[in-house]
Amino acid sequence: MLNESLIPRVPYEGCRSSYSDADLVLIGAGYDGTSSYRPGSRFAPQAVRAETLYSQEDYSPYFDREITEKAIHDAGDLDLPIGNKTGVLEMIREAARELFADRKRPCFIGGEHLITLPVIEAALEKYQGLHLLQLDAHLDLIDELFGDRLSHGTVMRRCLEMLQKGDCLHQVGIRSGSREEWQFARQHTRLFPFDTKAFLENAAQLQGFPVYLTLDLDIFDPAQFPGTGTPEAGGIFFPEFIAFLKGIAGLNIVGCDVVELSPKIDPTGNSTAFAAKVLRELLIAI
Amino acid sequence: MLNESLIPRVPYEGCRSSYSDADLVLIGAGYDGTSSYRPGSRFAPQAVRAETLYSQEDYSPYFDREITEKAIHDAGDLDLPIGNKTGVLEMIREAARELFADRKRPCFIGGEHLITLPVIEAALEKYQGLHLLQLDAHLDLIDELFGDRLSHGTVMRRCLEMLQKGDCLHQVGIRSGSREEWQFARQHTRLFPFDTKAFLENAAQLQGFPVYLTLDLDIFDPAQFPGTGTPEAGGIFFPEFIAFLKGIAGLNIVGCDVVELSPKIDPTGNSTAFAAKVLRELLIAI
Amino acid sequence: MLNESLIPRVPYEGCRSSYSDADLVLIGAGYDGTSSYRPGSRFAPQAVRAETLYSQEDYSPYFDREITEKAIHDAGDLDLPIGNKTGVLEMIREAARELFADRKRPCFIGGEHLITLPVIEAALEKYQGLHLLQLDAHLDLIDELFGDRLSHGTVMRRCLEMLQKGDCLHQVGIRSGSREEWQFARQHTRLFPFDTKAFLENAAQLQGFPVYLTLDLDIFDPAQFPGTGTPEAGGIFFPEFIAFLKGIAGLNIVGCDVVELSPKIDPTGNSTAFAAKVLRELLIAI
Amino acid sequence: MLNESLIPRVPYEGCRSSYSDADLVLIGAGYDGTSSYRPGSRFAPQAVRAETLYSQEDYSPYFDREITEKAIHDAGDLDLPIGNKTGVLEMIREAARELFADRKRPCFIGGEHLITLPVIEAALEKYQGLHLLQLDAHLDLIDELFGDRLSHGTVMRRCLEMLQKGDCLHQVGIRSGSREEWQFARQHTRLFPFDTKAFLENAAQLQGFPVYLTLDLDIFDPAQFPGTGTPEAGGIFFPEFIAFLKGIAGLNIVGCDVVELSPKIDPTGNSTAFAAKVLRELLIAI
Amino acid sequence: MLNESLIPRVPYEGCRSSYSDADLVLIGAGYDGTSSYRPGSRFAPQAVRAETLYSQEDYSPYFDREITEKAIHDAGDLDLPIGNKTGVLEMIREAARELFADRKRPCFIGGEHLITLPVIEAALEKYQGLHLLQLDAHLDLIDELFGDRLSHGTVMRRCLEMLQKGDCLHQVGIRSGSREEWQFARQHTRLFPFDTKAFLENAAQLQGFPVYLTLDLDIFDPAQFPGTGTPEAGGIFFPEFIAFLKGIAGLNIVGCDVVELSPKIDPTGNSTAFAAKVLRELLIAI
Amino acid sequence: MLNESLIPRVPYEGCRSSYSDADLVLIGAGYDGTSSYRPGSRFAPQAVRAETLYSQEDYSPYFDREITEKAIHDAGDLDLPIGNKTGVLEMIREAARELFADRKRPCFIGGEHLITLPVIEAALEKYQGLHLLQLDAHLDLIDELFGDRLSHGTVMRRCLEMLQKGDCLHQVGIRSGSREEWQFARQHTRLFPFDTKAFLENAAQLQGFPVYLTLDLDIFDPAQFPGTGTPEAGGIFFPEFIAFLKGIAGLNIVGCDVVELSPKIDPTGNSTAFAAKVLRELLIAI
Repeated sequence: MLNESLIPRVPYEGCRSSYSDADLVLIGAGYDGTSSYRPGSRFAPQAVRAETLYSQEDYSPYFDREITEKAIHDAGDLDLPIGNKTGVLEMIREAARELFADRKRPCFIGGEHLITLPVIEAALEKYQGLHLLQLDAHLDLIDELFGDRLSHGTVMRRCLEMLQKGDCLHQVGIRSGSREEWQFARQHTRLFPFDTKAFLENAAQLQGFPVYLTLDLDIFDPAQFPGTGTPEAGGIFFPEFIAFLKGIAGLNIVGCDVVELSPKIDPTGNSTAFAAKVLRELLIAI
Repeated sequence: MLNESLIPRVPYEGCRSSYSDADLVLIGAGYDGTSSYRPGSRFAPQAVRAETLYSQEDYSPYFDREITEKAIHDAGDLDLPIGNKTGVLEMIREAARELFADRKRPCFIGGEHLITLPVIEAALEKYQGLHLLQLDAHLDLIDELFGDRLSHGTVMRRCLEMLQKGDCLHQVGIRSGSREEWQFARQHTRLFPFDTKAFLENAAQLQGFPVYLTLDLDIFDPAQFPGTGTPEAGGIFFPEFIAFLKGIAGLNIVGCDVVELSPKIDPTGNSTAFAAKVLRELLIAI
Repeated sequence: MLNESLIPRVPYEGCRSSYSDADLVLIGAGYDGTSSYRPGSRFAPQAVRAETLYSQEDYSPYFDREITEKAIHDAGDLDLPIGNKTGVLEMIREAARELFADRKRPCFIGGEHLITLPVIEAALEKYQGLHLLQLDAHLDLIDELFGDRLSHGTVMRRCLEMLQKGDCLHQVGIRSGSREEWQFARQHTRLFPFDTKAFLENAAQLQGFPVYLTLDLDIFDPAQFPGTGTPEAGGIFFPEFIAFLKGIAGLNIVGCDVVELSPKIDPTGNSTAFAAKVLRELLIAI
Repeated sequence: MLNESLIPRVPYEGCRSSYSDADLVLIGAGYDGTSSYRPGSRFAPQAVRAETLYSQEDYSPYFDREITEKAIHDAGDLDLPIGNKTGVLEMIREAARELFADRKRPCFIGGEHLITLPVIEAALEKYQGLHLLQLDAHLDLIDELFGDRLSHGTVMRRCLEMLQKGDCLHQVGIRSGSREEWQFARQHTRLFPFDTKAFLENAAQLQGFPVYLTLDLDIFDPAQFPGTGTPEAGGIFFPEFIAFLKGIAGLNIVGCDVVELSPKIDPTGNSTAFAAKVLRELLIAI
Repeated sequence: MLNESLIPRVPYEGCRSSYSDADLVLIGAGYDGTSSYRPGSRFAPQAVRAETLYSQEDYSPYFDREITEKAIHDAGDLDLPIGNKTGVLEMIREAARELFADRKRPCFIGGEHLITLPVIEAALEKYQGLHLLQLDAHLDLIDELFGDRLSHGTVMRRCLEMLQKGDCLHQVGIRSGSREEWQFARQHTRLFPFDTKAFLENAAQLQGFPVYLTLDLDIFDPAQFPGTGTPEAGGIFFPEFIAFLKGIAGLNIVGCDVVELSPKIDPTGNSTAFAAKVLRELLIAI
Repeated sequence: MLNESLIPRVPYEGCRSSYSDADLVLIGAGYDGTSSYRPGSRFAPQAVRAETLYSQEDYSPYFDREITEKAIHDAGDLDLPIGNKTGVLEMIREAARELFADRKRPCFIGGEHLITLPVIEAALEKYQGLHLLQLDAHLDLIDELFGDRLSHGTVMRRCLEMLQKGDCLHQVGIRSGSREEWQFARQHTRLFPFDTKAFLENAAQLQGFPVYLTLDLDIFDPAQFPGTGTPEAGGIFFPEFIAFLKGIAGLNIVGCDVVELSPKIDPTGNSTAFAAKVLRELLIAI
């Protein structure tokens, strides 16, 4: 049979479970419609997967484990109606609902940060007392951006309004925002600016709660990860991320996303390779 | 007052009239929110102007004339609420209205092609029997794209609905679209596919009518003009454009726009220089 | 079911036939192991397919036909053992054999030009009196390159040795090679240098014979198609290619390939879009 | 009048003072005529300003302060006669003189490092006992480069000759130069190679003196800041710069410049964003 | 001996004559100090040579001749004191003098167009009644640019002052300049704007005179040749250049130069390959 | 004499010894035929040398020494038969043999990592008890890659088979590989993953033995060194490399290589400048 020698699709390398056997489900949501500066994260899911085919090992020496050992299914990408924001958010919400209903832990590949909102809506239907753990350079706590309440700059404000209380939103690595956002964060969220150290000292407090992890890749320094829409100097580097993953071992991560890779911004292609490696470590660690 | 919604600016070289003295008014509308493929035309107005500072002569040897001889005012860029499409269209419409009311001929620098829609709305309030002359690779005649009736792929369909009759829309240089769009065009518009020659033979029929010229830069071959979101091989080259401008001499152009330069796509910067030169020739010719 | 809203794989847009129903079968062979100058065509098959998802219409206005009307199956990419040339050629030959045996017309996406060799080997088992129609900037008639008889520079010499007689190899658009290659070509092949016009005047002579078409994309001028390993100024542009396709209408094309796109060389991405459009026209035309 | 030699401009975001109300005055000097390796810093002033329009917050979380709180006027760019070095230096010197005479603290955006020379000439007319604090990868202490005493490689030697004594020149972060320059520096300047720590331990000695700060952005590691003409591995990263700014709090900074951004070298655009952020922190801190 | 398997230097491929045996001598003059827009042509000589090593055939199918058949010596590059314009011009003039004295025909690889000036000075010492044949997009007839009489924008004005009379300067392919330059050219030079056709019809008039050919590569359209500092749409393509070379067959070319390749502007590298091929054809043709 | 003002070839700046006087001999081996992901290291030797001409100082402030003080000869590049792997390896082996026979210490510039294999073969003929010190992100211990025992992924496995015993292979900075490779390494080599610290604590054990140092530049973090075929986040930065060089002072380094720079991957050119600087420090240190 011809097909046996073919690559029948482009899954993330090493994600070999069927949907029914899977614990984690990888799914792309390449939406970037509200990017206020440099768009392009719509191309991320496909780019990340393709990258893993050529260059990525299954094995993590940081965790002495292979991604193939985890029960992960790569479901492909949502075929989003780019330009129709309402439709996009609805489609993501429905997918997330179905995944949570099937007792899967979703891992969404963005897209911009707004895609987190419908996933959190779905997660809250399933998990009471959900904590939201945000790694990010930006607060994303604007109330209205250009007369719009739904954008990559307002997404955490919207999430916060749905969470039980402010101390369920943990904002880690933050180093940018307006004065108003910073004042709001200091009053209403648990803010750990600049790096991950202060959060890790308190991570044990999340023990026992369902936690959703949203990783905006711009938490990384632009030196490490240039391929993102809104670069912000002063971020973390890869070793700190590995330490973070080790520090949250034992937490009950019920879902996650990785957002804001914009592959075409980085002509070396290294940002895509970086995001793929970050995703491998994340999938192995949680 | 028009100026209050504008971003202060580097003016296009050679545009030296005050607003009150001006016949032509240059104004930027850097919106790219509905780009279905490669966004980035939001950066065009500023890039084009900056380019003229360094490298562009005022003099056109094609028309033996300097841009400084025309009464052109560069009004700057509209400060558009990126992400809020309704607000964007409203702001452009208001600016166009004011310009037409002040008996100016506007020249909008896009942005994507959707920005033409509110300008045509304003133009039709002023000019009965307006003809719309579209230079473009794409028909832009989709009725609904991803459930959306307002997008860069539907803009000419919307314009057509407002024009008196179909033979007021002249589509020149077209070489892409769905079968449905082509069938629609063959029935409802004046279609001159692939190049400008057939149109020019009939251009005299527009004599006496008010004409709005919308120039989607992707009418040019991607070899000539790589920096655009939806490149389509088989387009025209610069000398044909000069011949076109000479061919429409004498027409009553009441306004125009130049859209779909996406500067960052072309790392040589030559697409921006090209758009600036095209704009110089256009401003001198009309 | 979740999967219904997903893109389950990345097929070339519009290729919707099952394998059994298909007449034409698209298949990737991303090998670039003998590139003597700038490698990278290994990335072409995946890049071309991904491109069609975002930006390409199914409809060709040049032929007034949609790609969906043709019975085309996209079989995916061969999982080639890069670095093991013998293994690579063997795997391509086997796939081609199977396709010809199943009465399919294969369309291979390279990779470098050497991939044509095993396909011709398989084609000759099926089709006696096969003519090989080569569009190319280079003769590829070197006997031995760096002590190697199997390379992208020798591939047509090897093919020629298998064909019945020299006048079965038609070399069109050629504009580069050593003096020895040119002298050899003038004696042993049917040479139509620089453009396609002289060939088209004689194309009728191929009527009735089985013809395999190999399209080295570097036949196009580097202005039109910068993304290739060995750019050679003075090539054809897109309209001439459309004229060529119209000129060979009626020939019995039993298979084809499109080779030497190297996507990363062209940072605008336009070369990939160009190759995808060329492929669409080719698939519709033959 | 200062303004007559200026290019109209896009102002740096948040600089809202009128000239008369301003304490700090931002002014561009895009000269790169003596760059011995990779020119292009001429494009920096305009690029930095444009960057701030799209992406930069007014608020610094490092200093808990907004740039709008400082009395800063953005005067635009000097319209320099590129190619006429004498004329360029004269025009910068005159602008600096006028600014110092008007009791403003100038902040020049280069351009290459040679632009510092005429500013120091003007500063010394105003401030006796001036200290010059240089952050840089290179010593710039060559006496004559290619038979030329005025170049980006000789600028600190020329400045030193004008300063009262050698211990008024503080060279921080240096990691490149000829043996002769290093020997000269060890004898004639206060040299703090490789990083800023040793300088900060001694910074208090500058208390009370007028200090001019010249920031050659190539003090940053090329990983952090690739967009510069003469990259030199082993430099500082952003957090060390913030620590430096905190360490010089209380010094009497009478003027400053930021030089050697070459925007086109970094195709991601991140170097320009980085320079803009560095400038924001600098303007807020001093 | 180890050295026998080494590439001992980087000569232009196929230039194998010793200096004493050579008729033509290739020599690099990588100066770009007066570039008013985008510098970088200093890198051209080395880039062009390196390019020929990897990818260029010795054989021209356009002239059915190999470059190895011509007696060409590649002398390497002048080690110019970048930044010291007077010294640069002096060194080029001395090299040209020596070459003309040794009865060689020099072929200079620029660098910017100003390098032609000292070569013409040397040529005029040797050849009375010299004609200067300029292929260029720009007139380069400004009298003073930024207070400077020696720049890439004034070079033909300076040359003209040295030539016997105005009808010795033939300006071909011109499509840019100020109104003043165009008026001056119409009165004082032989002007053949936009393309080479009108000149070729008159080329026979140069028969018998010594002719120096200066080829500013920006005569080519930026689509064909993006890698130049001042791109100007509307230029010629490669086939017209071949026709030009055939049209000047029989003229007495006593020297030539090829200027204004700026390799880093074109990230595909194709502009460098293009310049190398143009140079091959030129060396074979004259 | 004309030649005295010329750059007669492109040697690495500061390498001024004749072959007979030299202790160290620099030699290029630009082979990349087995690169499984992103090829291009074939261009490295020429790129590194050219870089040093423009921008690199002879003096290292880290070691207070000039490269000119060392007796280094730059022999140029081997003219390798790209595509013919056997021939390539043979030619490198012969060159290495001759160099060792002439009592030189070779420093090879790759090329991919496979070039180390023939050098080690030659070294072992000369030096019994040779230790191999590998700085690398990857183990390169695969036994067979795509049915091939000779590739950049298997090179250290092949070297290990030739060394006396496993504890002669020191693998430093490793952070990638398959589980099988890691298990193999833990049993058969001296493995110092992630950074250089643990190795340096044990470096004294190498005292007295002949040591060959192979530096795969991808040991550096991609932030520091983006221009390599297989980027792997989490690597070292420049200061750690300087500390490493100081830590191995006194070891008997009998030869070395620097591999896996792929210049075209990094459009800023900074990776080439980085590799050149690394090479300068290495040549000065050993």
